[in-house]
Amino acid sequence: MNPSYGFACSDASEPLKPWSFERRDVRDDDVRIEITHCGVCHSDIHQARNDWGWASYPLVPGHEIVGRVVEVGSRVSGFKVGDAVGVGCMVDSCQECPSCAEGLEQYCLNGMTQTYADKDRRDGTPTYGGYSNQIVVRDKFVLRMPDNLDLAAAAPLLCAGITTFSPLRHVKLGKGHKLAVVGLGGLGHMGIKFGVAMGAEVTLFTRSPSKEAEARALGVTNVVLSTDEEQMKAVAGTFDFILDTVPVPHDVNPYVASLKRDGTLIIVGVVGPLDPPVSGAQLIIGRKSVIGSLIGGIKETQEMLDFCAEHGITCDIETIKMADINDAFERTVKGDVHYRFVIDMASLEAPKQAA
Amino acid sequence: MNPSYGFACSDASEPLKPWSFERRDVRDDDVRIEITHCGVCHSDIHQARNDWGWASYPLVPGHEIVGRVVEVGSRVSGFKVGDAVGVGCMVDSCQECPSCAEGLEQYCLNGMTQTYADKDRRDGTPTYGGYSNQIVVRDKFVLRMPDNLDLAAAAPLLCAGITTFSPLRHVKLGKGHKLAVVGLGGLGHMGIKFGVAMGAEVTLFTRSPSKEAEARALGVTNVVLSTDEEQMKAVAGTFDFILDTVPVPHDVNPYVASLKRDGTLIIVGVVGPLDPPVSGAQLIIGRKSVIGSLIGGIKETQEMLDFCAEHGITCDIETIKMADINDAFERTVKGDVHYRFVIDMASLEAPKQAA
Repeated sequence: MNPSYGFACSDASEPLKPWSFERRDVRDDDVRIEITHCGVCHSDIHQARNDWGWASYPLVPGHEIVGRVVEVGSRVSGFKVGDAVGVGCMVDSCQECPSCAEGLEQYCLNGMTQTYADKDRRDGTPTYGGYSNQIVVRDKFVLRMPDNLDLAAAAPLLCAGITTFSPLRHVKLGKGHKLAVVGLGGLGHMGIKFGVAMGAEVTLFTRSPSKEAEARALGVTNVVLSTDEEQMKAVAGTFDFILDTVPVPHDVNPYVASLKRDGTLIIVGVVGPLDPPVSGAQLIIGRKSVIGSLIGGIKETQEMLDFCAEHGITCDIETIKMADINDAFERTVKGDVHYRFVIDMASLEAPKQAA
Repeated sequence: MNPSYGFACSDASEPLKPWSFERRDVRDDDVRIEITHCGVCHSDIHQARNDWGWASYPLVPGHEIVGRVVEVGSRVSGFKVGDAVGVGCMVDSCQECPSCAEGLEQYCLNGMTQTYADKDRRDGTPTYGGYSNQIVVRDKFVLRMPDNLDLAAAAPLLCAGITTFSPLRHVKLGKGHKLAVVGLGGLGHMGIKFGVAMGAEVTLFTRSPSKEAEARALGVTNVVLSTDEEQMKAVAGTFDFILDTVPVPHDVNPYVASLKRDGTLIIVGVVGPLDPPVSGAQLIIGRKSVIGSLIGGIKETQEMLDFCAEHGITCDIETIKMADINDAFERTVKGDVHYRFVIDMASLEAPKQAA
């Protein structure tokens, strides 16, 4: 076994604290990774607090993981010690169902294995995430980090990046399209960067007039205050696609109204009900659609990383120390982050008893 | 002017009664049609009772119109006296916007002109529907009725037919697809016929166990009682497309659950809110979508009629006399019709003062 340490919460009401645990020995097809950085995703907070009801404790969050390979299994051919690698939201899937066969492991019909708060498919041991010094992951679920990307700033690509890249590729976003992004947070700022890089004209919907300058710096050509009826009227029927990154229930009808005929509203944030309800008339009169999207497959995640390398795209981050994670959670909930916290794992101290 | 007569309601609380009115003189590009039959659509009832709030009175309902050409304007080349023709939900559109340019007049950005309870684009006079002896319509909005279709049984193709045909074509329904249809009424039974003719394997979702035999007679291979949890579980994740024809708000989440990954729920019935709300998680986990669709364009309506002629498809109808329309409305609201009432206009008596 591999003695490991990191930060965990022991139940839904407790803050994260230092915790020591074991990672499995490297199997034939495993890669052991020394974690250098881990992004702080809003879902880490939801899971730590059991907001979705399926958390398991002790819970070590973190699924935006980058680091260096320190050991590989005997059958691993794609990675060697020293390689810069990444791990996202999944660490395994059945590899047999139609979704897996199509490289869409995130939609594995037998359920993908999540990076934390889940169980390993082979031995049933709990999975623990990236708020720790190392991780052992099946090679098929390890990504190659391109050389020219800053590892810290690339960490959130593994969740915030692929979550926004995948649906934009799925709808074939490109030149000539008008895209609007709802919300300027971890996901939203990546949606803007990808939209611009894919050649679309990008608009930001926001409730905060203060975000205009920063949004324009990211490449948007227009900022619409969603609280301003006149501004909303002015963009009615104008967008081909809208990427809605807001992670809580909200009224999507004003966004549907701003879609062109045959336009599509892409939901990546709201796990709960689309409440207030979507108007049937709004969908019918204009043949509009609402579609959901969940992260992306491993092949597409690698394509996204390579796309980022080609276009010089990383996340805008604020690096924090591991010990400041509880404060970072609070600030994330308040939206007080531009746009993603990333933990510098060099700041994670080894437990004294293990020294 | 063309003295005309039919049945109209004078306000939202009144039954339909005989009424005499004027149709305009035939313009250069108009066709005057002696109406032989008119289908009774559920939206006729909604409009007569002002359920949607935009009715105007006196209101002559009817937008599933068939008949014979009795006069053509000087510039009309596509029709001649004696031709069997049809008119659906639209009688005009701007002909200039991108939607009209693509033959999607139903999504005219300047608003299509509805067959009744609307205003003519050129002279502002009210439009009156097909519960009458004749109608004058711009030639571009007149359809050719194929010779081998029974006119009475073909009348509802102009609304119930195109409303279900168009979205199935839009999603490219074909062989190898599994389609489910929700609801076995005027729209539902046409959705089944088209689904079968397009080569799909068709399932009916219904709340009435009594509908199994009739559904199988229409060609469905499976009938699922939507009130039976076990039956619903058995079809979870199995359909490529679901055509939801229910005209009142209802919980669509059990239907979304029965879609495959990348499956699409098509809404053609609910004009109100999708309440209870659609679950964001259900859309996200499986990249599922909900799309609306409104009737179809004129070109596609003609294609639908020709498809019906080729496949021997018409509606299953019950012919009624004009004088029985108020009773037919009551029976339609109760669902007591297999599957569409069609008024035989030979039963419409000319008003005595005009005789």
